[in-house]
Amino acid sequence: MNDYKKILSECAEKIQPFIHRTPVLTSNYLNKLSGAEVYFKCENFQKMGAFKMRGAMHAILNLSDDQKSKGVVTHSSGNMAQAVALGAQLLNIPAYIVMPENAPQVKKDAVKGYGGKITEVFPTIGDRQDAADEISNRLGAAFLHPSNDFNVILGQGTAAKELLEDYPDLNVVMTPVGGGGLLAGTSMAVQAFGKSCITIGGEPSNVDDAFRSMKSGRIEINEKANTIADGLRTHLGDINFPIIQKNVERIILVDEDEIIAALRLIWERMKIIIEPSCAVPFAALLKEKESFRGKKVGIIITGGNVDLGKLPF
Amino acid sequence: MNDYKKILSECAEKIQPFIHRTPVLTSNYLNKLSGAEVYFKCENFQKMGAFKMRGAMHAILNLSDDQKSKGVVTHSSGNMAQAVALGAQLLNIPAYIVMPENAPQVKKDAVKGYGGKITEVFPTIGDRQDAADEISNRLGAAFLHPSNDFNVILGQGTAAKELLEDYPDLNVVMTPVGGGGLLAGTSMAVQAFGKSCITIGGEPSNVDDAFRSMKSGRIEINEKANTIADGLRTHLGDINFPIIQKNVERIILVDEDEIIAALRLIWERMKIIIEPSCAVPFAALLKEKESFRGKKVGIIITGGNVDLGKLPF
Repeated sequence: MNDYKKILSECAEKIQPFIHRTPVLTSNYLNKLSGAEVYFKCENFQKMGAFKMRGAMHAILNLSDDQKSKGVVTHSSGNMAQAVALGAQLLNIPAYIVMPENAPQVKKDAVKGYGGKITEVFPTIGDRQDAADEISNRLGAAFLHPSNDFNVILGQGTAAKELLEDYPDLNVVMTPVGGGGLLAGTSMAVQAFGKSCITIGGEPSNVDDAFRSMKSGRIEINEKANTIADGLRTHLGDINFPIIQKNVERIILVDEDEIIAALRLIWERMKIIIEPSCAVPFAALLKEKESFRGKKVGIIITGGNVDLGKLPF
Repeated sequence: MNDYKKILSECAEKIQPFIHRTPVLTSNYLNKLSGAEVYFKCENFQKMGAFKMRGAMHAILNLSDDQKSKGVVTHSSGNMAQAVALGAQLLNIPAYIVMPENAPQVKKDAVKGYGGKITEVFPTIGDRQDAADEISNRLGAAFLHPSNDFNVILGQGTAAKELLEDYPDLNVVMTPVGGGGLLAGTSMAVQAFGKSCITIGGEPSNVDDAFRSMKSGRIEINEKANTIADGLRTHLGDINFPIIQKNVERIILVDEDEIIAALRLIWERMKIIIEPSCAVPFAALLKEKESFRGKKVGIIITGGNVDLGKLPF
């Protein structure tokens, strides 16, 4: 536990000049509705619009000078692409971003806006990884994994660290679970900085791989990935899974209509734009209301990069 | 000017227990894009989701005990309905809200949620006023006008007062102009608390009555009210117009596509939900970029109550 405290504090200090300390918002209406006291840590207001900035920045800062000079590479259609591009831009090093050719133009434009060099590939995970490997081999660029990288995990954990500094008495911290980096990092921060606080994950029933992994004790994968929470379609990795097994209390599953209802509630009542993925933990809280009654619950709002042309309302 | 300072300070003190001091947000991206330093005063995070809470609260608090016991009445399909209902609820007095029968169900539900007693009428301004007058005569309830009431005007001015307390060096404060209550109150606060600061209004070209009123020196009305900025379809009143004439530098007109583009920029980049009306001043700033270059500009974001099922994107 003390180890967690030390390494998370070092990480937070290192990335601090490059990230925003995001605000924590509350809503009387949502508190009444849920019966809990809910504290939303708004990473949708983070640089490039998502918590991924924290992990990407930390991983890039931990590269050697020689590695930095050769740049970084990742494959992503989403927030990791923007986070790596912006993080590299802030340090003035090259970023090679492999994106599926069918990624939304607005995301490609954002990556270009941050100076990322885009390689477009066929939209399969195999093609994406092959292209990233090729760039890494040819140019010596360091490959950054969005969730299964210890430095990325630590970076993601700094959001919960800040939240617990602001509200030390939280009983629960909740995050969505996709690749597992945020949930693992958050659980470390909760162990390090919480007082009798637990970590709970929220996951769409349609991609319940992490829920099943917790039961079976091995990394399960999804046969299908049919969820509106597009950030949560991936599965756990061998670095974050043991951390999650050790520190996370449980994972709550929610259905698509519950995610959309929670999303709409947060948009309408809090007047903030959040991604569908971030509505998952709040949907989980509403689903199991009784077990959270009277508790102080922190929720990491993971990001706000949504395609306004494709809303589910 | 000293008079303004005194009456606005008294108003602010009176309503303070009943309203939120809303945050001021900034965006590096929008600053770069506009060439100005822009400070957004986020009244979309105000109670019931709009600045109207300030004016309604102040008007209600200024009623005599006898008046209060008989309650208040207004007619509105929008934010004034919710503001009066919530303000009355906080003081435990009755609120009678006349709403057009075609008002969105979500707005009727919000008014009911705040304990307002709704009377539905045919959606003409005549029918609305007749019904409000009838309730006022029969029950002795005090009629509250949304914009042409001096106590309402003062209440709306407290948003700019807070903004200038946080950022005393603003060169310009901008608001949209509809009925004129917010623009009048803001211009008073700018005179009272700004240092060589001016007030500018933004108005849709399609409902340019205030712009024309400033030219002609008398209250002009709109023949048509075809704008997405549904809060700005009304015209000025005889109480707020002289204040606006005296204190407002000028009004900038913007077209519908400029409003929608500015709205989308703020949603996408700032991750906050704002009403189309609030995008009008920022659209005006972008339209006349050159004249704002390097200036510190405060913009009152008026509210965040939008129908998510009817977005212009």
